[in-house]
Formats: sequence, C-alpha cells, structure tokens
Amino acid sequence: MKRLFTRGAILSMKEREPLLTDAAMLVDGDRIAWVGNGLPPKQEWDELVDMKDRLLLPGWVNTHNHAAMTLLRGYADDLPLQIWLEKHMWPMEARFQAQQVQAGTRLAVLEMIRGGTTCFADMYDHMDEVAQVVADSGIRARLCRGVIGLGSEVERRSKLEEAVQFVRDWDGGADGRITTMLGPHAPYTCPPDYIRQIVEQAESLDQPIHTHLSETMAEVEQNVNDYGVRPVEHLDRLGVFRRPTLVAHAVHVNDEEIALLADRGVKISHNPGSNLKLGSGIAPISLMFRYGLKPALGTDGAASNNNLDLLGEIQLAALIHKGAEQNPEAVPAIQALAMGTRFGAEALFLEKEIGTLEPGKKADFISVDLTGPHMQPAHDLVSHLVYAASSADVQDVYVDGRPLMRNRQLLTLDEEKIRWEAQQAFHAIAPEKNLPDDGR
Amino acid sequence: MKRLFTRGAILSMKEREPLLTDAAMLVDGDRIAWVGNGLPPKQEWDELVDMKDRLLLPGWVNTHNHAAMTLLRGYADDLPLQIWLEKHMWPMEARFQAQQVQAGTRLAVLEMIRGGTTCFADMYDHMDEVAQVVADSGIRARLCRGVIGLGSEVERRSKLEEAVQFVRDWDGGADGRITTMLGPHAPYTCPPDYIRQIVEQAESLDQPIHTHLSETMAEVEQNVNDYGVRPVEHLDRLGVFRRPTLVAHAVHVNDEEIALLADRGVKISHNPGSNLKLGSGIAPISLMFRYGLKPALGTDGAASNNNLDLLGEIQLAALIHKGAEQNPEAVPAIQALAMGTRFGAEALFLEKEIGTLEPGKKADFISVDLTGPHMQPAHDLVSHLVYAASSADVQDVYVDGRPLMRNRQLLTLDEEKIRWEAQQAFHAIAPEKNLPDDGR
Repeated sequence: MKRLFTRGAILSMKEREPLLTDAAMLVDGDRIAWVGNGLPPKQEWDELVDMKDRLLLPGWVNTHNHAAMTLLRGYADDLPLQIWLEKHMWPMEARFQAQQVQAGTRLAVLEMIRGGTTCFADMYDHMDEVAQVVADSGIRARLCRGVIGLGSEVERRSKLEEAVQFVRDWDGGADGRITTMLGPHAPYTCPPDYIRQIVEQAESLDQPIHTHLSETMAEVEQNVNDYGVRPVEHLDRLGVFRRPTLVAHAVHVNDEEIALLADRGVKISHNPGSNLKLGSGIAPISLMFRYGLKPALGTDGAASNNNLDLLGEIQLAALIHKGAEQNPEAVPAIQALAMGTRFGAEALFLEKEIGTLEPGKKADFISVDLTGPHMQPAHDLVSHLVYAASSADVQDVYVDGRPLMRNRQLLTLDEEKIRWEAQQAFHAIAPEKNLPDDGR
Repeated sequence: MKRLFTRGAILSMKEREPLLTDAAMLVDGDRIAWVGNGLPPKQEWDELVDMKDRLLLPGWVNTHNHAAMTLLRGYADDLPLQIWLEKHMWPMEARFQAQQVQAGTRLAVLEMIRGGTTCFADMYDHMDEVAQVVADSGIRARLCRGVIGLGSEVERRSKLEEAVQFVRDWDGGADGRITTMLGPHAPYTCPPDYIRQIVEQAESLDQPIHTHLSETMAEVEQNVNDYGVRPVEHLDRLGVFRRPTLVAHAVHVNDEEIALLADRGVKISHNPGSNLKLGSGIAPISLMFRYGLKPALGTDGAASNNNLDLLGEIQLAALIHKGAEQNPEAVPAIQALAMGTRFGAEALFLEKEIGTLEPGKKADFISVDLTGPHMQPAHDLVSHLVYAASSADVQDVYVDGRPLMRNRQLLTLDEEKIRWEAQQAFHAIAPEKNLPDDGR
C-alpha cells in the first residue's frame, strides 16, 4: 500500500531542516519513502491524500505515563502530595483489577490518539492488558512493569519475575510496535539490592531502564538520610546508568547531578503539567540543555495532570521556563517541539525508527488543521503550533503508515464503548462517586 | 423570546453554590429568568434546547486585551522584551491603520467567541473600529482608548480628547453591551501630570480607569529612579485609585503594595500566559488572595500569548502557582474558574450584570461538551473543566440571550471572510512574510 500525501506543509523535525510549504510525503507500507517540496520523482501510489491547509509532522512521543490511572482522573485534586497518594491514590489503585487497567488504558490510548500522540512509554501493573490495548489500537509504545520493592522478599521476587516475563512475552510484539524496558519504580521505593538485581536482569535481557527520579524535594532529602548521597549518585553507584536509562521528572537535581546525568547519557522525561499540579516544582530544563541533555516530555498519569495532551506539555515547556527564569529566550518554540518529537524518540531509544519524517523511518505522523482563527495570520506555523494551537486541531494520526484517525474520526477504537466501559470500571471501585449519566 | 435549556449540568459560579446536575435555565429576552434542578415551575417557552451531556456556566470574562494585535500573532517570538517591543512591535504598530485594527479585532473576536469568551476588556487605538466590531458581532466589551503620553503636549491633549470622545460616543452602546473606561497606558509611558488630567476626566465622566502596572522588574526600577517610589504608591499619590481601577499584570508587587491595592479596592487582571511568554515573571497570586484581592484573568494581546484562549489562562492560573510555590493547594480549581468568570465581572465593574448564572442577570453563558475522552470518568466536572478540558470543547455561546455560536457553528460572523481579510491586512504591513496560501 502506497499513500501519497500532497499539498501540505511539512515539518520533518530533522535538525535545522526548515518547514517545507506545498510539500509531499510518500508512504510505502509502514515506512516513509520520500519527503520534499512539490511531488516525488516516481509518482506511483494507491491512494492520494490532499493535505492542503494541513501541517504534517512526526507524532508526539509521550515519554512517561501510567495510562491506566486515567481511570482516576479528577478523583482527588488540589491536595498535599502525601495525602493525595496515601489517602486517595494508593487505596484506589489497590482495588485495580485487570478490568480497571484495561478500561483505563483504553480510555488513555483513545485520548492520546485524539491528541496526536503516536508513541508512549508506560509503567504500571497488569501490563499484559496494557500491551493488548496497544496491539489492538495500533499505537506504538515502550512498556514496563513498574516494580516497587517495599514488600516481602517473596513479593519482590515475584514482581521482578513478572517484569522479566513481560519483556520476554512482548518485546518486539505487535509487528514491532511494542518494545519494553525494566522499571524499578524509584530509589525511595526500591532497596539498593533490589535495584542491583533489576540492573542485572536488564543487562542479561539487553533492556533499558525506566525509573522515577527526584520528583520532590522530600525524596531527595530521604535519599540523603537513608544512603548518604543524593539520588543521582545513588543510582550511579548501583550501576543503573550503565544501562540506557530514562528518568522521569528530575525536578530537584543540582548542577553536579545534571553534569553526571549528561556524562552517563541518561535520558530525561520532563513532566511539566504533573510537576506543577502536584506542587513538585519546576525542573531546571535550561540548565539541562546547557549541559547537553535533550529532555523529552511526558504527561505522567492523568490522575496528576489531568489529561494526556502532549501538545499541552510542549506548550507548558515553552512557557514556564521563560517565566520562572524571567528569560523570554528560554526553551524556544522549535526546541519545545523537538522535546515532544525527536528528543522523545531518543529518550525511548527509538530514534532510528521514529521522531522525524525522513525516508526509511516508520510512518508515524500527524496532521494539524491550519484554518482555525487562532492560527492566523498563517506565516509562522512553528510559533502557532507551540503558542496558539490545541490538540483539537490534530486531524489525522498515522502509526506504521496505518491511519488511526482521519479528519478526527477514529478508525481502530470504539469511542462510545470505551467511554461506557471506563465509567463502569470506575464505578466498580468508586461506588460513592456519582456519575452524571446515572439515573437519567 | 423565551428559551428553556434543559437536562444540562449547570455551574452558576455563585459563591458556594454546588454544581447542579440535570438542571434547567430559562432565559427571557436578554436576561436569565430561572435556574435550578429539574424544570421551572412555569413552563412556558418559545424554544426548548436540550443540553444533555453539556455543562452550562457563565461565559469567560477576558479582563485585558489588545484585540487588534491578534494581527501580529507570531510576528516575533522568543526575544528579549525590549528587542521584541522596539524592533518588532512598535514599528509594526506604527503601520496600523483602521483596516488593520478592524481586521485584527474581528479575528480576535472570532477566536474569543469560539473559545467561550462572552466579555472582554480592550485597550487600543482606532477604538471606533473596535466598538463597531463588538456591536456587529454580539459580544460584550469594556473598551478604552489606550493613551501614551510620551509625545508632545499637543499629541497628549489630542489623545486624551479622543479617549474622552470615545467614552461619550460608546458608553452604553450596542444595547448596553459596550461600556467604557479611560486608559492611561502605564506609569512609565504617562508623565504624572498627564495621569492627573486623565483622573480628572475619569471623575467628571464617572469612568473607571484601566492601566498596566509593574509587568516587569525594569519598570519598577525605572519608577523608583524617576519618582522615588514604586509604581503602586506612585499611582496612589496621583489619585488614580480614587477611581474604580483595573490594573493589568501586577507581577512585581511586594507585600506592602498588595496591601495598598487591597485597601483601595483595586482590581487585578492576572495575565499568566503573556507574563510567562515574555519572561516577565509569575505574579504573586496566592499572596493577593490572602490580602483579600480577587484577581481576574486576561490573555493580553495575541502578540505576546499567542492566543486568546481564556480557558487556557484559567488552566495556567490553576497550575503555575502550585508549581512556583511548591504548594498543590495554591489556586484550587473552583477558584481558578471564579477568576475567569465572577471575579472577571467584578474586575470590569459589571458584577451586577454578568459573572454568574442567576435570575435577573444578563444571559451571557456557554456550554461545554462532556463526552470527550479527556472528560471521563465524568464525576468531577469542575476538575475536568479546569485540568483537562480545552476551549475546543465549548459548544454554545450566548450573550444577552442571543446565540453567537451553536454546536460550534458561528451565527454572527463569517469565519472565512474574517480569515481572508486578516491575511490581507497583515500582508499590507508585512509584505516580507510569506503566507502559505500565496502562490498555491
């Protein structure tokens, strides 16, 4: 199947490549065959798709999520972190069964596709359910079973075995759309020996590692109290950074830690919406760039965001550092876009396959409507996309060359059914919450 | 004309009034006649409107804008403030004629209605054009001719005369939808004597005053250098605060100044998007609340935002103060919604007419679609509206009981014509910028 997309604007997100106006892209099967101004030299196709008044660019890469937690969207807000976690999130998550994970993840994937996300990283439990939703929906994902090592030795071993089995079962699954990682939850939830065991498994399975790092000041202080060093040095000593590693948050990291992360080639998932909403703080993103890091973006779970709108995260990344540093040159528009695309692909160790539109790469891309009033006058599309657009402007979403949404119509998911099942799955664990559809 | 809106959720935004589910609102002419659960006692209407799966609430009030600058959206970004202003904005604004103000304001009003704004404050030049667009479009506005006193005595006098004439011509215009103010631009652009003259005129015309205040640290320092006091005390000494006053920004105000602003009953327009984007800083909103102020929200002009999405400002207000203060309890969701509605009405001295949904008030309201995946599970609509919704979820917009948008179809504005005219007006003053529609 060859599809030729014509007459669109194309932003390939290759470094220093300017926006192409009146351009075309040829997709052959699951890969991009040609991108450029005008039309490709060999004009053969099975379908011609007119992209006039649309901007084509790589799909968003959401580098940190707990998709199933979408079921807890708005369940508890505006609370101190410990009360939010201990009184609300953990008791609810303890009630999660496969039904909740499946329904929550489906709702999350539906929302992500609608917003233009073509690939996401996920860390959760019941990961077979998550992988199946990914397989069925057509989206791409890098998945890991998040393991918390606070229980007994038996529990720890069982969780790690589950994480390893998940890798064996699913890495490379769904025609390669699913890849995996190992996911020690955080330095404060995994004892050092457990982290060492996970690193060993990651080495023998050749897997990257995904973990939470220094989201709050309290975590950092606890790490210093418990182990005598700050979390970055702690993880480095445990050998974590010998593996390709992606850390989420990195809000409370100092110069020395940023230098060490850069030296070890660690990838950063910046989660501005979640960090703001939970009052965690504002990560030192400009400083990370100065040390050569290329932070990517993540939404975190929808219980602390409260949506999965990666364009919203791009926009926050482009705004909040300017304000916090009182520097309008911090995180320029094109850099924020790179954080949501190319740097995201690098953060998930998928940069050979996705993150830019160029021949040979997977055809994971989206189109954005340029006709809205907020997109006029239409002379600087990068600026408008970052500072004025919304995810509702996303019209088409393709993964592996397959359309998942066209003209905002979903092609692989039944929206009404997913909404209904999410309400049911939520109601089963939170019968005290009234849903507006009840009793109508 | 009586319209009965039924089966919706209704958030009246009256203080401490809970969300009504399965509620109705009766609108008689331009005013609200009844709001409550179920149906009104006397069921007479000319039109019955089913609002199932929709949330009704007061329209957004945008308390600071320069609507015509929408024509300069994305014209210059990611630059230090002085270069942005002196090298880009001022030279372009010098080229603005009535055509540019008309086209830019039409584009702005189109975008605002699409996003659910039913009332806005504007400060600009060629204000007859702005008022005419407001009259034609059906939106509500509080308008002032912004006066800068940096020119000659003759220019100063002429501008003030123009501002006064504008009040005489338009206050109470368009069936009362237009009200006016006097608008000395800022303490750093208006000499003290000029501000005194403006205050005198405001007194004799019984007009409120709208001005910029302490947007940047540099302005504050300049004020101290020039006049020996910080801007708040400076304006207080000049008698400004004897008039009902609305100040935009108030980013760099200290405890003492906030106490004085509260004592004088000054209204605050918080512009988080613009303040972040220009690197001005983050206004001390939580502190203002502690002093009893009730800050409202504004987008500022689209050249520094870069959109006119007031729900986006509500969301930023709910997020950035939590992050900046590392306090998840700062600016709770319902308070952020009040900033965009009830406090906005108070900030424009229109609280007797708009800002809440209650019998006797003007029927200025919007509906929001509740069926999107990002709005599920649908148990806490206030949370979802503030933390997950987007302005694209706004379905219906009414002002004075008249529908301006229904099911996202505009009823008073020709969207394609406005887009075309905006491109033409922009091209006339920026021929060097390529527009993607050229040459296709």
